[in-house]
Amino acid sequence: MTPVTDFALQCPLPLRDYPVIVMAHGGGGRLMHQLLENIFWPAFQNPMLGQQHDGAVVRMNGRVAFTTDSYVVRPLFFPGGDIGTLAINGTVNDLAMCGARPQYLSAGFILEEGLPMETLWRVVQSMKSAAAAAQVQIVTGDIKVVDKGMGDGLFINTAGIGCVETELAISPSSVRPGDVVLLSGDVGRHGIAIMAVREGLSFESPIESDCGPLAAPVRKLLDAGIEIHCLRDLTRGGLATTLAEIAGTSGWRINLEETAVPVEEAVKGACEMLGFDPMYVANEGRFLAIVAARDAERALQLLRSEPICAQATRAGQVLEEKSGLATLKTIFGSTRILDMLSGEQLPRIC
Amino acid sequence: MTPVTDFALQCPLPLRDYPVIVMAHGGGGRLMHQLLENIFWPAFQNPMLGQQHDGAVVRMNGRVAFTTDSYVVRPLFFPGGDIGTLAINGTVNDLAMCGARPQYLSAGFILEEGLPMETLWRVVQSMKSAAAAAQVQIVTGDIKVVDKGMGDGLFINTAGIGCVETELAISPSSVRPGDVVLLSGDVGRHGIAIMAVREGLSFESPIESDCGPLAAPVRKLLDAGIEIHCLRDLTRGGLATTLAEIAGTSGWRINLEETAVPVEEAVKGACEMLGFDPMYVANEGRFLAIVAARDAERALQLLRSEPICAQATRAGQVLEEKSGLATLKTIFGSTRILDMLSGEQLPRIC
Repeated sequence: MTPVTDFALQCPLPLRDYPVIVMAHGGGGRLMHQLLENIFWPAFQNPMLGQQHDGAVVRMNGRVAFTTDSYVVRPLFFPGGDIGTLAINGTVNDLAMCGARPQYLSAGFILEEGLPMETLWRVVQSMKSAAAAAQVQIVTGDIKVVDKGMGDGLFINTAGIGCVETELAISPSSVRPGDVVLLSGDVGRHGIAIMAVREGLSFESPIESDCGPLAAPVRKLLDAGIEIHCLRDLTRGGLATTLAEIAGTSGWRINLEETAVPVEEAVKGACEMLGFDPMYVANEGRFLAIVAARDAERALQLLRSEPICAQATRAGQVLEEKSGLATLKTIFGSTRILDMLSGEQLPRIC
Repeated sequence: MTPVTDFALQCPLPLRDYPVIVMAHGGGGRLMHQLLENIFWPAFQNPMLGQQHDGAVVRMNGRVAFTTDSYVVRPLFFPGGDIGTLAINGTVNDLAMCGARPQYLSAGFILEEGLPMETLWRVVQSMKSAAAAAQVQIVTGDIKVVDKGMGDGLFINTAGIGCVETELAISPSSVRPGDVVLLSGDVGRHGIAIMAVREGLSFESPIESDCGPLAAPVRKLLDAGIEIHCLRDLTRGGLATTLAEIAGTSGWRINLEETAVPVEEAVKGACEMLGFDPMYVANEGRFLAIVAARDAERALQLLRSEPICAQATRAGQVLEEKSGLATLKTIFGSTRILDMLSGEQLPRIC
C-alpha cells in the first residue's frame, strides 16, 4: 500500500485543484490533457505514447497474438495487488498463453465522477510497476468519465499484442493422449484474497493474491524447446473450468490427481468456511502447461526455477479416451467429473 | 431500429430462459459460454474467434497501428447509430487516422446486471454490420458483468490493429507552412443527435449522427499518392479542439475559414437554442486531412467521390507563423483563436 503522504508529495500541482474526477476529465479538452500530462504520460512514458496520435505505430513481424480483457474487480485494492496490477498481468498472461512475447498494451479507463484523484494515481503507479516487471509498454490509451452512480469507481480495459516466437501450434486441439499436465503452483489464492477483503474476514496468516506475470516461465519452456501442446491460465472458473474447457475442445479425457494440486492451508480453511471449492476459485498468476510426456520432467524443473512457479507440480495426464471429460482422482481414491462452473461463485474477482 | 419481433424470432432458444443479464453471465462458466455461443460467436464468426483461446493469432508485417477506445455513450441507441456502430467505427477511424488499413478488432463488454438480453443482441447485430461495412474482423473479446447500479447498461471497449501501408510520416509534426487543411464534411451532427434524444428535443428535420467508417476515403488518398501530412478525426472536443491540438504540436499557426465549415441548418438551430458552438461539438464520421498544397485540389476531388465525404471542403491553411495557434476567420471577417475545449460541453457522447 502506498502511504497517503506519497500522493500529497508527488501529486503534480495542477491536479490539486481537482481532488476528485469530474465529468470534464473525460471531455477531450484541457482537463483531460491535464490528467494525461500529469498522471498517465509520466507513468507510461515511451516514444510511442509521446506521438500524441490517435494510436501508436509499432513494428511487428510474423504471427501476432492479440487479446483483451476488461477489469471490474471489487474492491480496487486487495492483498497482493490492485486493479492496476491485474489489468497488466491479466493481459500479459493471456498473450503468454498464446506462446507470444507480450510487447505492447493499450489501456482504456472508465472513471466514475467523484473517484478520488489519489486512487487513480495509485492504480496508475501500480500499472507502471507491473508493466516494467513484465517488460511491456503501454503505448496507447483512452479516458472516459461516467456520471456518479453510473459506474463503480474505476474500470480498466487492456488489450495487448505480442509476437509469437514459436512454430508450435499451442491450442487445446494439439493435446494428445499421453501428454502430461503441469500445474504452475498452488490454486485459489486470488479469489479468496478478494473475498476476504470484501467480506471483512481476517485469517491468522493473511492470504495474498497470486497475481503476477507468467511470460518469463513460458519463455523458459519455449527457449528450451519443450514440446508444449497447450497453455492456459486459471482465471475465472479456476482450474476445474479451465481443464473442462481444454478437455472438451481437445476431445480427450484429461485426468487430474487431487494430491498433486497444491492449496495453501489458509485458502483451504477459508474455502471450507465459505463453502467454496478451491478447484473453481480464480487465480491470476497460475497456469496449466500440457506438454509431450518425454519433455514433462525437464519442463517441470524449468518451471520450478522461476520464483512464480516454485511450487509447480505434475498434476495429471491426458488419457486415451475420447470422452472430452475432465476428471479428478480425489485424495480418497475415487474419481469425479470436473464440470464447467455453472453459476457464479465469486463475482467481480477480476 | 430493429423491430422487437426480430429478437423474439431470432433469439436462440437457451437465451429465452434469461431475458436479462445476470451476474453469472460474467462468471467464466456455463452461462457465459451460452452468451458466447448464441450471441457473440454467430455474429462475429471468423476462424480466429473459433480458436476459443486466450487471444487470437494473426499475421502482421511491418508497421502496425494499435489503438483503443471505450464507449460509454448515453443513450445506447440514437438516430444514425448506437453504441455498437460507434464502438466499431470509432476504432476503425482511429486506425485510419494513423494511415493504417483497419484489420482486426478486440471487443470487451462490461454489462450491468439486469440489461435486457434484447439490448445486447441488438447492439451485437449493429457491431456485426458495422464491422462488415468497415471490412474488419472482431477476433478476440471479453465479457464482464457488474452488479445492478454499478454500471449503466452497457460499456464497450474496442482495440484495433492494422498495417500501416504507407511510408508517409502522418503526424502533427509533419505539418508545414503552406499545407492545406481539408475538412471531410459538415460538423456537429453526432453530438447534437445524441443531445436531442437525451433532452427529448425534436426538430422539423431529424438530426442523424454522422457515425461512419473513414478508412475508405483515407485509403483513396493514400492509393493516389497524395502527400498527406496529418489526419485526425473530429471526435470529443470537435473541430476546434482537434485543430488546436494539431497546431500546438506542429508549432505552426493554422487558420480556418468559417465560410468553408459546413454546418447543417438543423444543427445550427439546435446549437443556437442549446448554447453550443458547432466547432466544439463531437463528430464520429468526420476528419481533417492536412496535405501538401500542390496535392490539395486532387485530394479534395478524391474525397468528394466517397459518399461519406461528399461535402468535403478546402477549409484552411497552415501559415508561416510560429505561434502554434489555431485561428478562425469568421464569416464577419474577424479572426479569433480556437482554444482547446476547457470544460465538458456534452458529456458521454461516445
